[in-house]
Amino acid sequence: MLYLIGLGLGDASDITVKGLQALRSCSRVYLEAYTSVLTVGKEVLEEYYGKELIVADRDQVEQGADEILKDADVSDVAFLVVGDPFGATTHSDLVLRAVTAGIPYKVIHNASVMNAVGCCGLQLYNFGEMVSLVFWTDTWRPDSFYDKMCKNRAAGLHTLCLLDIKVKEQSVENMMRGKKIYEPPRFMTVAQAADQLIRVIQRRREEGAEPGVTEDTVCVGVARLGADNQTIRVATLQQLMSCDLGGPLHSLVVTGRLHPLEVDMLRVNAEPNALQHLRMMDSSTYWS
Amino acid sequence: MLYLIGLGLGDASDITVKGLQALRSCSRVYLEAYTSVLTVGKEVLEEYYGKELIVADRDQVEQGADEILKDADVSDVAFLVVGDPFGATTHSDLVLRAVTAGIPYKVIHNASVMNAVGCCGLQLYNFGEMVSLVFWTDTWRPDSFYDKMCKNRAAGLHTLCLLDIKVKEQSVENMMRGKKIYEPPRFMTVAQAADQLIRVIQRRREEGAEPGVTEDTVCVGVARLGADNQTIRVATLQQLMSCDLGGPLHSLVVTGRLHPLEVDMLRVNAEPNALQHLRMMDSSTYWS
Repeated sequence: MLYLIGLGLGDASDITVKGLQALRSCSRVYLEAYTSVLTVGKEVLEEYYGKELIVADRDQVEQGADEILKDADVSDVAFLVVGDPFGATTHSDLVLRAVTAGIPYKVIHNASVMNAVGCCGLQLYNFGEMVSLVFWTDTWRPDSFYDKMCKNRAAGLHTLCLLDIKVKEQSVENMMRGKKIYEPPRFMTVAQAADQLIRVIQRRREEGAEPGVTEDTVCVGVARLGADNQTIRVATLQQLMSCDLGGPLHSLVVTGRLHPLEVDMLRVNAEPNALQHLRMMDSSTYWS
Repeated sequence: MLYLIGLGLGDASDITVKGLQALRSCSRVYLEAYTSVLTVGKEVLEEYYGKELIVADRDQVEQGADEILKDADVSDVAFLVVGDPFGATTHSDLVLRAVTAGIPYKVIHNASVMNAVGCCGLQLYNFGEMVSLVFWTDTWRPDSFYDKMCKNRAAGLHTLCLLDIKVKEQSVENMMRGKKIYEPPRFMTVAQAADQLIRVIQRRREEGAEPGVTEDTVCVGVARLGADNQTIRVATLQQLMSCDLGGPLHSLVVTGRLHPLEVDMLRVNAEPNALQHLRMMDSSTYWS
């Protein structure tokens, strides 16, 4: 049996009882370590789970799937994923390989940022399509996420922005020389995301467009969602550009139309003046 | 401390280790019992958790919040919610009351249908706004969900449909007589949802509109998501109208544009001929 087990979002104890029982019965346990991180590292997890973990980076999962699935028809193998196994990314390819090889699989779900973000006070059924923000380079500055965000907002919907993670990155120089030397991990912060977003807004304005999301749009910065030291900051995009929410992971939400109950919840974590731009549209909603 | 603890989606063992530890430390434990259900009842949960549970229906949560929060400033109280505490519904009001009363609160997240539905093979970042389908009555047949669904689909996005639950319903007669007699619980099935949706499609067609979602649209019926006897059925909406996916809870997904990897995953659970209408739009996507 191949078990795909979600670890949730905070620390070692965020695994489900079912997930913990399953992984302890496995002969090999892989830890997927490139799409997300917990607040604790491999060693803490190993001690808590009582099992040795094999760290699987992107290359191993995408090219070494056969090794992960080896003997999974006659013994149990676990593949651990931070959040939910089918959360921010997908491990469909591994599942399909298991199915093709006649290996049964079982998914043990857990929280992911996509549902846990509801704790900021925005109602989950008011979210539209989510977007991803990647680290820009000198030559690659994609901004298609901005149009999706504006489309959501025009429909009154909130946008969850997943922020980039680089955990095993080679410099161009090392890559060209074939040296397997990796840069330190990088995690996009809410401040960096706000900065990038404001650059897109400015660019659109220079091009003569009327931006649908502006520096004054009320946004929510979330850091270490689900962990004991979780931080939520409600502020305008401009204000978030200079915020420091501490260690990874960070996420950003751009609000759409707000229900009064949502406004009350946002107020709990709001920066001074952050909500001053809100104006009532009708008896049921606010807009920034 | 007020703990809002998600129970996940399957049975008693889907609670997180952190959640179980927290609830065992509480002097009172409430079980929210009107927005969702697990595959096991209160007694099984009580035995597994080792705690007596107080069932809280909608009236108690919405009007008896003071009782739930009583003494939560000096002792620990747990409020258990199937799925994630901020999943399909919201308990913002309870949180706001706690904040106002100066009672600290902590959320312990878990899986909800909104992220776990990814196990059907559709990528979560391709979902648009979700919708709810309610049981129609003779005089109340809302269909605004259909327009949202068509809007998502036109944008290539999938739509998660949450299906109605009636757990403590009074007949009009009993309500008028002030009799607190309740009807047996009702859970909308995938077949009922497909039937309702097809009636809307027919109505729109009679009005001269070209429906954006039709009887041939590929949909996914999901039953008991996350439980050991979870069932996934991929079929056209017409085919789903006559499917029997067993006990509650059910959900329905209406697909948008499909990535080849999504098609491969859907094929694992597909009805004969369900995917025959799919045609390749370009090298990267399929459409039904």
